[in-house]
Amino acid sequence: MMSVVQREGDNFLVIDLNCDLGEGFGIWRLGDDDALLDIVTSANVACGFHAGDPQTLRHVTQRAADAGVAIGAQVSYADLRGFGRRPMPVSADELYADVVYQIGALDALARAAGSRVTYVKPHGALYNTVVDDEAQAEVVVSAVRDVDAGLTLLTLPGSVAAKAAERAGLRVVAEAFADRGYTATGRLVPRGEPGALVTDVDVVVARVVRLAAEGLLRAVTGEELALEARSVCVHGDTPGAVELARAVRDGLAAAGVAVERFA
Amino acid sequence: MMSVVQREGDNFLVIDLNCDLGEGFGIWRLGDDDALLDIVTSANVACGFHAGDPQTLRHVTQRAADAGVAIGAQVSYADLRGFGRRPMPVSADELYADVVYQIGALDALARAAGSRVTYVKPHGALYNTVVDDEAQAEVVVSAVRDVDAGLTLLTLPGSVAAKAAERAGLRVVAEAFADRGYTATGRLVPRGEPGALVTDVDVVVARVVRLAAEGLLRAVTGEELALEARSVCVHGDTPGAVELARAVRDGLAAAGVAVERFA
Amino acid sequence: MMSVVQREGDNFLVIDLNCDLGEGFGIWRLGDDDALLDIVTSANVACGFHAGDPQTLRHVTQRAADAGVAIGAQVSYADLRGFGRRPMPVSADELYADVVYQIGALDALARAAGSRVTYVKPHGALYNTVVDDEAQAEVVVSAVRDVDAGLTLLTLPGSVAAKAAERAGLRVVAEAFADRGYTATGRLVPRGEPGALVTDVDVVVARVVRLAAEGLLRAVTGEELALEARSVCVHGDTPGAVELARAVRDGLAAAGVAVERFA
Amino acid sequence: MMSVVQREGDNFLVIDLNCDLGEGFGIWRLGDDDALLDIVTSANVACGFHAGDPQTLRHVTQRAADAGVAIGAQVSYADLRGFGRRPMPVSADELYADVVYQIGALDALARAAGSRVTYVKPHGALYNTVVDDEAQAEVVVSAVRDVDAGLTLLTLPGSVAAKAAERAGLRVVAEAFADRGYTATGRLVPRGEPGALVTDVDVVVARVVRLAAEGLLRAVTGEELALEARSVCVHGDTPGAVELARAVRDGLAAAGVAVERFA
Repeated sequence: MMSVVQREGDNFLVIDLNCDLGEGFGIWRLGDDDALLDIVTSANVACGFHAGDPQTLRHVTQRAADAGVAIGAQVSYADLRGFGRRPMPVSADELYADVVYQIGALDALARAAGSRVTYVKPHGALYNTVVDDEAQAEVVVSAVRDVDAGLTLLTLPGSVAAKAAERAGLRVVAEAFADRGYTATGRLVPRGEPGALVTDVDVVVARVVRLAAEGLLRAVTGEELALEARSVCVHGDTPGAVELARAVRDGLAAAGVAVERFA
Repeated sequence: MMSVVQREGDNFLVIDLNCDLGEGFGIWRLGDDDALLDIVTSANVACGFHAGDPQTLRHVTQRAADAGVAIGAQVSYADLRGFGRRPMPVSADELYADVVYQIGALDALARAAGSRVTYVKPHGALYNTVVDDEAQAEVVVSAVRDVDAGLTLLTLPGSVAAKAAERAGLRVVAEAFADRGYTATGRLVPRGEPGALVTDVDVVVARVVRLAAEGLLRAVTGEELALEARSVCVHGDTPGAVELARAVRDGLAAAGVAVERFA
Repeated sequence: MMSVVQREGDNFLVIDLNCDLGEGFGIWRLGDDDALLDIVTSANVACGFHAGDPQTLRHVTQRAADAGVAIGAQVSYADLRGFGRRPMPVSADELYADVVYQIGALDALARAAGSRVTYVKPHGALYNTVVDDEAQAEVVVSAVRDVDAGLTLLTLPGSVAAKAAERAGLRVVAEAFADRGYTATGRLVPRGEPGALVTDVDVVVARVVRLAAEGLLRAVTGEELALEARSVCVHGDTPGAVELARAVRDGLAAAGVAVERFA
Repeated sequence: MMSVVQREGDNFLVIDLNCDLGEGFGIWRLGDDDALLDIVTSANVACGFHAGDPQTLRHVTQRAADAGVAIGAQVSYADLRGFGRRPMPVSADELYADVVYQIGALDALARAAGSRVTYVKPHGALYNTVVDDEAQAEVVVSAVRDVDAGLTLLTLPGSVAAKAAERAGLRVVAEAFADRGYTATGRLVPRGEPGALVTDVDVVVARVVRLAAEGLLRAVTGEELALEARSVCVHGDTPGAVELARAVRDGLAAAGVAVERFA
């Protein structure tokens, strides 16, 4: 069954904060990895296919290991130029091999840093595709399981990838997005549409606290959504990202919600 | 201590045959991987940095696993266009991260195929560099050990990489080259110079058999070299490569030398 | 208007033979460029996006220039790993810039060799896409025209790219395929279906001669097609490609058809 | 002869301001291209080998063309990961083909934008190498001349590249660096050493004005250098780069020095 907000006993709330990291390449940087690693509990680290040369990834994995932050493999289509945001015409064989390759590469860097890759979160277009596409979801899940059946899949609640992973015996953790608007059916409001982004810091913090405490979140159209998420994704590459992440973390602490990694 | 030709009891000779495989990319092929995997006992598989997209590597590792052939990570400088044959101006940090990344990527493919990467053999310019360059040899050895201290390093006997690996506690296996001429000091005659390549099949077979049986090989200048090698490298990408490899294998069998993987 | 088989006077037939060349990368080769440059009159040279590092392209353009073979830019989606055979999710801006970039790069190599790029032929998935896709066809045509309005577009007769090019004032040349089967509507039988490839050398030669002399070709379903083509494409990367191309060239000569470049 | 500060009549001073632009890749940005194009008169635009996908380059060349800014091809070793800052082990053939390819690609984008590439400035490690390396300087100069003998080479005064270009009949323009310290022999103080960077805006402006007006600049060790430069390079990727460039431009205007492109 899908992992949800865990209430151990009656009075203990816990949530994880995850963030995309290691998304520079060569001279180019994206986001402030070092600052974010002091805030989040899970690092979705790029694996070189949409971003992240090995040296950049080595730095991030070492910093994450030192900080006790969980390391997740943010696997992607091979698309450096498009930052993994384009749905690519991959065959099943190619996608399978690409996912295995990326997890292994990052896990070796994590091991060399004294840690391990403990979960996988698809990136960008692949993340979106496996929400609905059965065939690609099955391929990603098979690849994850064949590398290490002990890995957790971090994904959107109710996605076909989540269901495929459960069938395959993988642990699944659902995530919500701190600053993204939701439709009445629990999907993200597409970027560019009204309500897609929540920009007021106080509103973002209040949403995350309520989600962690009550498992509830209000859709842009007003409906109350029961959105059980063990992890909340904060963005690392937007202006004010570090401040927003810190506000969320502080808000959770003030509300008595423990922030702990899930894997 | 360096592994040498093992004589278990008095009357049992054993050698390994290794070959570079998985060196295609996309549509391009180099050598007949499938045919060679029926002959050799160890496959030095490219890791994507000088050759080998993940799908190609997936195919080779699965075939190697099915055939019981040992899988080695043929780590390289990141140089697809130069096929890893150019000495690249890498920093220690970059080389370390690149080697870790490559081993991990290939090992995940090997694990998905039901096998493991059991040894590492640097490729091309990196292979040559770590014969003499202390700094890069130390980096490569550290990277290998930090990924998995149980990995074996396959290298030229007497190289500084071999010594560094022994100091680091790694198992080292020495290799000889079936069809390359040797200088009086046990180094390879550079390509392009007289005697660099031995092209007569019968001569190649006789050399390999003698090397396996007696640990001896004659230099191009006539000296007798004591060249203890547990593995012999056959080339896969030259015309007649498959036939030559098969002749070597058959010649060893006829001479009563067992052909077995070392790792 | 579309260029067709030209009959200058009553008794002179002329056709062009084009072939994809420069499709290696680094150490990898595809087809025998040097041999084919002695046979064909137009070289569709890769531009680095699906194949062809600059050094390889430099060699091919110099050889083509020396042989008096016309140089065409074989522009492609940026997809080295997929050899340009996958329909890529490109934006109009990206495709435009990619096509301009490729033509310019190859033209500079051609100029350095004492020649020029005189035509453009899209490659692989892009070739197929602009047969039917109005939007991408318009982008490719705009890019070609904006680099040099004197360039010719080589394409399938009746394609939307051909029509867009004519509207834009570009010269268009239609091509046929020497060894591919045609449907009753004049499209290619998809690879993998019966009749997709014509493998008998004599049949291929007879088809090409008839096409050049009469502008007719029989579909796999028996219909007679009026397929006016000023150029015939011969493949360079199949087994026996050089022999087939030479047989076609010799057959044309024997039939009194002049083989001359169109641009 | 090398172009120097031109004094047309007795009372007219003119200088060019050049800056590296187009150095993003995909999602990644480096410097504020649009702001700098309002300030400088010459844009050294990346060509895709150290930075700059075609779409990024298309944007920059169009903006430069619209603003009347001269477009130079900032040719580089093929080294995206190292940003062209590593001396690469290229053969003469490879370097030649790479330089030709890059100039042609950028020139086509410039032409599509209604402009042309009018000069070439090697980037990073290649820039430094051709200051002293005769062989590589000759290759670069040959490549530039073979593409278009009307191109200007922008380089360090007194470099071997400048001399080779003059021998080849190319126009050469010498440049100075607004915020870099100089040794007593007119070379740049290496980064990391004391005095390598001038950070005080007023000092930078005063230096550039004096250089334009008198052709003089003081070395870090106090000597007066006669450094005749027709162009001054301002950096685009450092914090405060835009403000510094604007201050230089305003300072030149206030001193009565015209800022005009050289090509």
